[in-house]
Amino acid sequence: MPTIDLNADLGETTAGNPVADDAAMVSLVSSANVATGYHAGDPHAIRTTLRAAADNGVTVGAHPAYNDPAGFGRRFLDYDLAQLADEILYQIGAVDALARSVGTQVSYVKPHGALYNTIVHNEVHARAVIDAIRAFDRELAVMLLPGGVAVDIAQQRGLRVIAEAFADRGYNPDGTLVKRGTPGAVLTDADAVADRVRRIATDGSLVAVDGTVLNVGAESVCVHGDSPGSVELTRAIVEKLKADGIDLRSVL
Amino acid sequence: MPTIDLNADLGETTAGNPVADDAAMVSLVSSANVATGYHAGDPHAIRTTLRAAADNGVTVGAHPAYNDPAGFGRRFLDYDLAQLADEILYQIGAVDALARSVGTQVSYVKPHGALYNTIVHNEVHARAVIDAIRAFDRELAVMLLPGGVAVDIAQQRGLRVIAEAFADRGYNPDGTLVKRGTPGAVLTDADAVADRVRRIATDGSLVAVDGTVLNVGAESVCVHGDSPGSVELTRAIVEKLKADGIDLRSVL
Amino acid sequence: MPTIDLNADLGETTAGNPVADDAAMVSLVSSANVATGYHAGDPHAIRTTLRAAADNGVTVGAHPAYNDPAGFGRRFLDYDLAQLADEILYQIGAVDALARSVGTQVSYVKPHGALYNTIVHNEVHARAVIDAIRAFDRELAVMLLPGGVAVDIAQQRGLRVIAEAFADRGYNPDGTLVKRGTPGAVLTDADAVADRVRRIATDGSLVAVDGTVLNVGAESVCVHGDSPGSVELTRAIVEKLKADGIDLRSVL
Amino acid sequence: MPTIDLNADLGETTAGNPVADDAAMVSLVSSANVATGYHAGDPHAIRTTLRAAADNGVTVGAHPAYNDPAGFGRRFLDYDLAQLADEILYQIGAVDALARSVGTQVSYVKPHGALYNTIVHNEVHARAVIDAIRAFDRELAVMLLPGGVAVDIAQQRGLRVIAEAFADRGYNPDGTLVKRGTPGAVLTDADAVADRVRRIATDGSLVAVDGTVLNVGAESVCVHGDSPGSVELTRAIVEKLKADGIDLRSVL
Repeated sequence: MPTIDLNADLGETTAGNPVADDAAMVSLVSSANVATGYHAGDPHAIRTTLRAAADNGVTVGAHPAYNDPAGFGRRFLDYDLAQLADEILYQIGAVDALARSVGTQVSYVKPHGALYNTIVHNEVHARAVIDAIRAFDRELAVMLLPGGVAVDIAQQRGLRVIAEAFADRGYNPDGTLVKRGTPGAVLTDADAVADRVRRIATDGSLVAVDGTVLNVGAESVCVHGDSPGSVELTRAIVEKLKADGIDLRSVL
Repeated sequence: MPTIDLNADLGETTAGNPVADDAAMVSLVSSANVATGYHAGDPHAIRTTLRAAADNGVTVGAHPAYNDPAGFGRRFLDYDLAQLADEILYQIGAVDALARSVGTQVSYVKPHGALYNTIVHNEVHARAVIDAIRAFDRELAVMLLPGGVAVDIAQQRGLRVIAEAFADRGYNPDGTLVKRGTPGAVLTDADAVADRVRRIATDGSLVAVDGTVLNVGAESVCVHGDSPGSVELTRAIVEKLKADGIDLRSVL
Repeated sequence: MPTIDLNADLGETTAGNPVADDAAMVSLVSSANVATGYHAGDPHAIRTTLRAAADNGVTVGAHPAYNDPAGFGRRFLDYDLAQLADEILYQIGAVDALARSVGTQVSYVKPHGALYNTIVHNEVHARAVIDAIRAFDRELAVMLLPGGVAVDIAQQRGLRVIAEAFADRGYNPDGTLVKRGTPGAVLTDADAVADRVRRIATDGSLVAVDGTVLNVGAESVCVHGDSPGSVELTRAIVEKLKADGIDLRSVL
Repeated sequence: MPTIDLNADLGETTAGNPVADDAAMVSLVSSANVATGYHAGDPHAIRTTLRAAADNGVTVGAHPAYNDPAGFGRRFLDYDLAQLADEILYQIGAVDALARSVGTQVSYVKPHGALYNTIVHNEVHARAVIDAIRAFDRELAVMLLPGGVAVDIAQQRGLRVIAEAFADRGYNPDGTLVKRGTPGAVLTDADAVADRVRRIATDGSLVAVDGTVLNVGAESVCVHGDSPGSVELTRAIVEKLKADGIDLRSVL
């Protein structure tokens, strides 16, 4: 029976203002990338989401970011290696303490936003991420875009890598995402998205916008709960996958 | 042979601007109250100070604060119990992760600034502090001003309390500090400060400005490294205490 | 023909995440209380809302707050008079510069959240608000809860005061708001809310939960755009008022 | 009689912790680049420095920065043009309001740190700076490193440009600064620094590390008050210049 992990970015409620419907999403996904307070997330909101994850048997990942709350962590920010590594270690420790207080723990790390994208090619930032994870716990996994320098370093340093794909984004033949605003950038049809996830569940591959099959070995698929209709889309996908006999579960 | 613990607030370097001479102070004290990033302290500066503490055999405490970087944590900020508890747990976890990466760990918690003073009388904030510490690790100690509601709650909930006194502040007969700007508020004479510390080391008592002896049972004495001449004053005190055969060491 | 001013808190989009439907609200109200970046609001979001206000002929007020983004400015924070006054002056100047760049300007100041409530009784904070407004421009008005120390100081210092009432909140016989969570705290029926506004438009009075008539002299009524259904409620009220021949316009 | 403008970065006190000796520096320089709260500077500290500038007849510039308080504005941060322009406009307006309350005003803008360096080559960020200044007041001057895209845009858009040189930094033959940590990067000898300033006062030229004369047309020279001995070095330079009959004054 094929299995797949569905992950979502959660815990981003800031100043009392929710970004996504965390309660609904936690009941649908198998892994929660929980904000750490740097791009978003108040400690109390983080802990509330962690408790829901624990209650729903959802695996918890820390979702560290650049120190850019004004930009929601979506902008490149320059760093020395040690400064970035220490900030990431700080974030993982903070979320893990909250997680343990509700009976769960951080099992993996998925970098957020601009950090996630930068470490595909920036070796200094990639090393900072890997150093921080190893400094915290060498048994943690790291969730990354397949290919790129961070994957290489993580594997060299002995970390378990979870290759990630996006449920609703178009891919170029080279494995990069189709730029937003371009035709094919975002999939909005539940059947097309479910096909995407089903294929990944079967053999880890993707079909690019031009039909090229990309064997990226994805083990986890990112879904979203922060835009209109996104919870409903996720729910539809989950039902289709269950109807197909695909088991939703974390790989950890 | 009498012993005493000297503690100082460290790790408060923010945006690259140091507040105290951490390197000098770490070589003098037996306990370091390390900033957590809420009132001050960058993760890299925090980790640098933690490494120096580890290298010098100095016991590490987390020094959590209200989320008020603009006010250096010195202003009262209103909170719900759960929001404050979760923020404090976040801070302890963050610093402990940095501490463990350099071979040490958080052994106690000393609230900072307005939080330290508020929990003498505010039960909601006091419970938040104690709840957070217990949620992290019931074996952690808590360093507090003798007397007050936080001490009572900590003892009821089974936490080890370290009663603290100030090396260089005048005391009123009721155990409160003489208000800054009033005669006798600050001791600046090294001999007078050493007498204060020596007396605490011997029997935990203080002499108030009017001569009243206060049996506060202090086990740790706070010294400062953040004003002109304060490092030299601390060094002079340490030398006098050593000359008297008083052993400087953490009670933990 | 009776007139009334409808005001709403706008410009609170932070890190790209909207709090209210600013575009819809700007088309309905006559005055916009525009966030200043302290409790919420990015400069770009602020300017976008200011431009919409200018395009719709909506009068602009600055909406300064305590420096508490984590608490959305809803928590009391202690301040010295000069520190608070200077922060408020900073905020007014920042928003006025953005306003002038799109062809409008700050015409009044409405303190936000905990600051708004605190200055009803706290003289230091009230004086800080009034000092800051006068330091910026003595011709600015200030929008306040009727009664209380801030009104007194504003009038003594010669500022134009706009007394404000809330469209959808229950009032106690003493003019304070019925505490949230208590029966009668929030009005949700469009007819009841329109009755409230109509009465204020006619003679500035309110009816408290026990039937007491409060002659508060309100000149502006606060409506909300930040909760489910609140835009629709506001639209319904506006239509009822227009049908009654009540003119919606700023008093400035 | 030759004249020269000496400028310094001031108003950077944050959370009560001073970065430089503002009181001493204000008595020595002719122009103050006043922090705006983004990389550093509390409104109260900013206003205190502005008052001292007004009292000493020192011309005031706003010193806007990227929104990176953790990095003291020294790190590149990616921005859209409109977001950056609106942040800079916000900062200028905030400081100008504080300035006017003490009887002075913002007369020029000098970008801070990474923003200052980035706009030498990054057209988007350069345009944002120039757009913001023009949106505030087309009569403001802008202080920039000679050469580079920001100077070109400023001149095309009709802004008065003040070319700046550094009193104590070594220059490469191409007009860039010798990298810190390299021989010749920093001048520490008061005579050498005074020679530098005297030469600029006479004909606006610099001598690079290899003896090349750079005709940069500098009208203002940056001095520092934020490192040990820097106030004394500035005082020594000022005395030498006065002894030479060089008049210290703003070009505005």
